Amino acid sequence: MTPDEFRSSGYALIDWIAEYLENVERFPVASQVQPGDVRASLPAHPPAAAEPFSAMLSDLDELVMPGITHWQHPSFFAYFPANISYPSILGELAAAGLGVQGMSWVTSPACTEVETLMMDWMQELLGLPERFRSTSSTGGGVIHGSASEAALTSILAARWRATGGAINVTGDTTKLVAYATSQAHSSVEKGLRLAGIGTSQLRTVPHGDAFAMKADELARLVAADRAAGLTPFWVCATAGTTSSLAFDPIARIGAIAQRDSLWLHVDAAMSGIAALAPECRWVNDGVESADSFSTNPHKWMGVNFDCTLFYIADRAALLGALSILPEYLRSAAAESGAAIDYRDWQVPLGRRFRALKLWFTIRAGGVDDAIAMIRRHIALTQDLAAWVATDNRFEIVAPHPLNLLCVRLIAGDTATDELISAANNSGKALFTRTVLDGKVACRISIGGRLTDTTHVEAAWRLLQSLAAGG
Amino acid sequence: MTPDEFRSSGYALIDWIAEYLENVERFPVASQVQPGDVRASLPAHPPAAAEPFSAMLSDLDELVMPGITHWQHPSFFAYFPANISYPSILGELAAAGLGVQGMSWVTSPACTEVETLMMDWMQELLGLPERFRSTSSTGGGVIHGSASEAALTSILAARWRATGGAINVTGDTTKLVAYATSQAHSSVEKGLRLAGIGTSQLRTVPHGDAFAMKADELARLVAADRAAGLTPFWVCATAGTTSSLAFDPIARIGAIAQRDSLWLHVDAAMSGIAALAPECRWVNDGVESADSFSTNPHKWMGVNFDCTLFYIADRAALLGALSILPEYLRSAAAESGAAIDYRDWQVPLGRRFRALKLWFTIRAGGVDDAIAMIRRHIALTQDLAAWVATDNRFEIVAPHPLNLLCVRLIAGDTATDELISAANNSGKALFTRTVLDGKVACRISIGGRLTDTTHVEAAWRLLQSLAAGG
Repeated sequence: MTPDEFRSSGYALIDWIAEYLENVERFPVASQVQPGDVRASLPAHPPAAAEPFSAMLSDLDELVMPGITHWQHPSFFAYFPANISYPSILGELAAAGLGVQGMSWVTSPACTEVETLMMDWMQELLGLPERFRSTSSTGGGVIHGSASEAALTSILAARWRATGGAINVTGDTTKLVAYATSQAHSSVEKGLRLAGIGTSQLRTVPHGDAFAMKADELARLVAADRAAGLTPFWVCATAGTTSSLAFDPIARIGAIAQRDSLWLHVDAAMSGIAALAPECRWVNDGVESADSFSTNPHKWMGVNFDCTLFYIADRAALLGALSILPEYLRSAAAESGAAIDYRDWQVPLGRRFRALKLWFTIRAGGVDDAIAMIRRHIALTQDLAAWVATDNRFEIVAPHPLNLLCVRLIAGDTATDELISAANNSGKALFTRTVLDGKVACRISIGGRLTDTTHVEAAWRLLQSLAAGG
Repeated sequence: MTPDEFRSSGYALIDWIAEYLENVERFPVASQVQPGDVRASLPAHPPAAAEPFSAMLSDLDELVMPGITHWQHPSFFAYFPANISYPSILGELAAAGLGVQGMSWVTSPACTEVETLMMDWMQELLGLPERFRSTSSTGGGVIHGSASEAALTSILAARWRATGGAINVTGDTTKLVAYATSQAHSSVEKGLRLAGIGTSQLRTVPHGDAFAMKADELARLVAADRAAGLTPFWVCATAGTTSSLAFDPIARIGAIAQRDSLWLHVDAAMSGIAALAPECRWVNDGVESADSFSTNPHKWMGVNFDCTLFYIADRAALLGALSILPEYLRSAAAESGAAIDYRDWQVPLGRRFRALKLWFTIRAGGVDDAIAMIRRHIALTQDLAAWVATDNRFEIVAPHPLNLLCVRLIAGDTATDELISAANNSGKALFTRTVLDGKVACRISIGGRLTDTTHVEAAWRLLQSLAAGG
């Protein structure tokens, strides 16, 4: 592809994206294909000759689109918000065009320094503790690829601290014990497992009616483990659980963590971005006591996946856990302490210039856009809750302070399952099923960039009509 | 940003990228800034009002560019090849515009199925074993974010197999022992550490003059560990080490691994892509015996980082190690076995539509382009080696079958260090320092998309002139 072909193909693709995003409602929300359909429509073997870019664009339309579930569709109520935005797409494009590696400061200083600045901007915008700033004496922040990686990294730093660094030599994790509720994200169990903390070392702390951790139960479990000669080392408090957006009592958990020398990780992947809006800053309650914290601009701020903010109060534990320095990665800048080498703040070595998409989004007015969007989503959720309350076939099964409403049919699990399937198969909206304290529920996550009252009304009418006819 | 603003800004950014990549030689290769310079040039706090995209483009030129080390510069001889290409950039852009999550098949079937097909295309293009194909009875492939993640995933699958799955419950890694040479990539020690295999459980297998593993030493170490009641479980063989592009004897290592029930991971991150060229297919020698294998289209095939191919012969071990299934991630398609959920093939949960950049690159003629580029780089390396041999101030310190030449000054470490510093500070070229068997060496990695004989000649003249004057 020549530079001129890149220009013309690039313009065409820019147009294609704008056209797609502005008209995404013409598609069914969920892909209707069966397993194997997309592959069967594509050549089994690589092409023998080069093809023009127009062939790829045309295949995107005809062969790929049928296999896309449209996360940007305004009637996408599944999983979690994953809204993107135009400035963020341009940030991804700029990063791809520069093609630099940000593994070390010296491999492209701007890649590191813009990222550090963005982490400080976000600390300020979200009202997070000062000790998470890069300018604090011990803390700092980094962009990770996902909240899963942030949870894992937190576990690794905690493991290092709890063993005084011995873990790096002995690999002995057998005394370590971690704590979370059953409502914590699956990445908690996965991260612990990867780090050599098996399920027998993970205590499921009971939760209350609102699906939030019972702090006194945590204290009781920690005391029992200590008494048994084990080493409680890590607790995850979730600010907005995946199933129902429950908020663990972070301050109370933090007090226990501090007293008992546990590392407190706050997983605010889903809802932490709400703190952009002053009236939602309560989502940060208690976070002053966290050793680490993560939240996702790629969920509710219009920044393309992948962009997880990971903050840490004690970067020494992070570096102790993750730093490895072969000769070919040494640099005077890093060894002087003047520069950050982010490879030691994450699991992989290589890193893209992800800060650009955050920088572009913020500068293009993305913070005000996100605040307006967050307020709209919360208001729509409360409207929907009011409508649901008027239909006695339905019940609301969890608190809904933000943008997620969990409902079920009074008729029971089977009826609720059938309702979700029928709604999803309609192509008109998409929901996710979950199970809360043994009962099937339909999660209605209101988080699309273009989601407005018409879409929520239509979704509710759809559920009502299917509940009647189903 | 309105759709029309996105269009005009997008066109401008496409132009900016083409202009940048075609004129990248006008920049010094390495950034000349000092730590803190880039940050100091940017606003300390987020902007109060939205800015036009032209302001961001202008800041890219004026504030970011001075902090960029130009990995796409044809005189970039540092680290490893990291060439990108126009079709790949467009693939990244298309993925950003679609904004889908590929964590499960059901969350966007095309994202999974195009990826699976690309892994099969690459198996075919690289001449890798059939058992790595998705269509084989037990194997398959996935795109990872980095070879570090591939190594870690391999360790986790091996750990699961060696413990019969008990690791997921007990977290007990204390008997496990792993093997690699000192020349293996730092991600090997890092991956092991993360997985709870400390340095006391990692045996450094001696290497020979050519920096390749001595297989008989591996056999000896494994036998000793078995005799001591330990559980040898994983060995890494490298096809193209980072320091000197050494090739471990994979077939011999594989025979030992098979006999002693070790998992053999082949790390071909640096050089595996050479197998696109038939005359270089020897890089795959012995790979039939590998349990897992990784190589990086983002190094030597013009595909943007991140794109690591990770193949595995026994996907059951992978799923055993990594699968966790909360209610909100269940799907009928996956439970029927008809669909792949790639979240269980990797460390994080979320995933971008990375297959698009590989698909676009291959379809735009990227395989022939890569073969021509690989041949050019190898020929240039051999030319350079011939020139170096005529200058008795220099010596070549390692075999150079592909595109990396390691040289040093006969005058010693200090002189070689000074030479590397002076050359890098000139801005005219960029090299990486390494240490091979205790001796400082200058790595000359010839891997740029635009690197041609003029650049290699100029680099050699630069080194010669600085060696004379230094």
